[in-house]
Amino acid sequence: MIYRRTVPVEFNHCDPAGIVFYPRYFEMTNSVVENFFAEVLNYPFSRIHLQEKSGLPTVHIEIDFRAPSRLGDRLDFTLEIVRVGQSSVHLVLQAGSGGQERLRMQSVLVWVSPAGKAAPWPAEIQEKMKAFKGKRQNA
Amino acid sequence: MIYRRTVPVEFNHCDPAGIVFYPRYFEMTNSVVENFFAEVLNYPFSRIHLQEKSGLPTVHIEIDFRAPSRLGDRLDFTLEIVRVGQSSVHLVLQAGSGGQERLRMQSVLVWVSPAGKAAPWPAEIQEKMKAFKGKRQNA
Amino acid sequence: MIYRRTVPVEFNHCDPAGIVFYPRYFEMTNSVVENFFAEVLNYPFSRIHLQEKSGLPTVHIEIDFRAPSRLGDRLDFTLEIVRVGQSSVHLVLQAGSGGQERLRMQSVLVWVSPAGKAAPWPAEIQEKMKAFKGKRQNA
Amino acid sequence: MIYRRTVPVEFNHCDPAGIVFYPRYFEMTNSVVENFFAEVLNYPFSRIHLQEKSGLPTVHIEIDFRAPSRLGDRLDFTLEIVRVGQSSVHLVLQAGSGGQERLRMQSVLVWVSPAGKAAPWPAEIQEKMKAFKGKRQNA
Repeated sequence: MIYRRTVPVEFNHCDPAGIVFYPRYFEMTNSVVENFFAEVLNYPFSRIHLQEKSGLPTVHIEIDFRAPSRLGDRLDFTLEIVRVGQSSVHLVLQAGSGGQERLRMQSVLVWVSPAGKAAPWPAEIQEKMKAFKGKRQNA
Repeated sequence: MIYRRTVPVEFNHCDPAGIVFYPRYFEMTNSVVENFFAEVLNYPFSRIHLQEKSGLPTVHIEIDFRAPSRLGDRLDFTLEIVRVGQSSVHLVLQAGSGGQERLRMQSVLVWVSPAGKAAPWPAEIQEKMKAFKGKRQNA
Repeated sequence: MIYRRTVPVEFNHCDPAGIVFYPRYFEMTNSVVENFFAEVLNYPFSRIHLQEKSGLPTVHIEIDFRAPSRLGDRLDFTLEIVRVGQSSVHLVLQAGSGGQERLRMQSVLVWVSPAGKAAPWPAEIQEKMKAFKGKRQNA
Repeated sequence: MIYRRTVPVEFNHCDPAGIVFYPRYFEMTNSVVENFFAEVLNYPFSRIHLQEKSGLPTVHIEIDFRAPSRLGDRLDFTLEIVRVGQSSVHLVLQAGSGGQERLRMQSVLVWVSPAGKAAPWPAEIQEKMKAFKGKRQNA
């Protein structure tokens, strides 16, 4: 399946060239992942970080910025799961606006125990991620 | 009248104490003002900054942070207009969550011409701000 | 005494108008306070937050933005202590560049115990703040 | 040659897990590139963006986050030029602290004309980049 979320480009995202400053894109992609965990996996970041003292660091990113985004644009993000490992997940995020692709990102996130080490996913998360990955959009 | 907007506290807003880092509150208050200009005054920041090369700097802020906000909170912001001057506007913004006040801010913004000087409001903005200020919430 | 620290205006601080976006000024003022605690009070934020699980929230700010700052400016910040209370401190920060004042801020910070409540300053911090406040610059 | 710059991890970089939030790393890497352009190429971003209305967008990033960075760490960044094209440059940035590698990033930046299109490097920049790339560290 595909998770979708729209992020409006606001003043705080933009640089002196009037376009999105690329570090702000990563605030957006992190927010998309955060909302995916809350809405789809029913596992909000407050539970992960504050209650369970676990972590979900991003360990790898590969990203192409295809075209600039401007103040007032609405960015349509998609998130797909490519691979679910024992303690990692491979994601693909894309963002576009008005039919034009703006960025395409592959990232790898890892589940980390309160001791700060990579650890197996909680079963609940892993199952839901596998189900999300396997489900056809219109099935 | 009162303009309302809800901002969820996300991971990127929070500091090592797990609470909103105060500079991030100003990203939120700026976003509330930006959305007020777009939605209520029909004057989006892209028009002000990119098309008209004008500006809307904040020249004064007084703010009390009453209680901390945590990851996962939903902050309900209100914005009211206190005074509309020739080239300035005095605002009061408040934010709360679950019935608890988190912050109260008074700010002054000034309209600035492409030459970078304070300038009279465009008539359209000034009239709409005065109307918003004067209108009773339930009238 | 007066604590001084220079912060260069970099690309990430600037908005589509090419000037410092005001929430970024608060990242700067927080950094000035953080470096003052580390260098002058010998009490780095890592000790306060990570080791002692205490906090130092800003509870009140009053700030005037006097003139815009541009990409490439070097901002000379000063920090002075106005009042040292039982669990609070009143600061005045100013920033200028090339002889022009850019901002003047009064703020109140509070010491907070691991339980999240205002608490008396550690004696070491309070004594050093009082000594800093009382010392003449050229004495 | 290798360009070096140290960035202290400050409070504003850190997330509720007490470690650097990855979008903040990109504020750091952008700052390292910005200072490299000013110090080594003698071409500050204010000249590129404000005076010449040109741009220098990052179009591709590949990054590995090898270990977390904590509040108070000092991150030692290195920047090397891998390839200088007609309108692009390939960089490698690394950051470490206390002998431990924290991240390794490959990025591609493109010179963009005031019209917003990829354009050949100004000769001055291209020559200096080639000279920097070719020079041995201790020659």
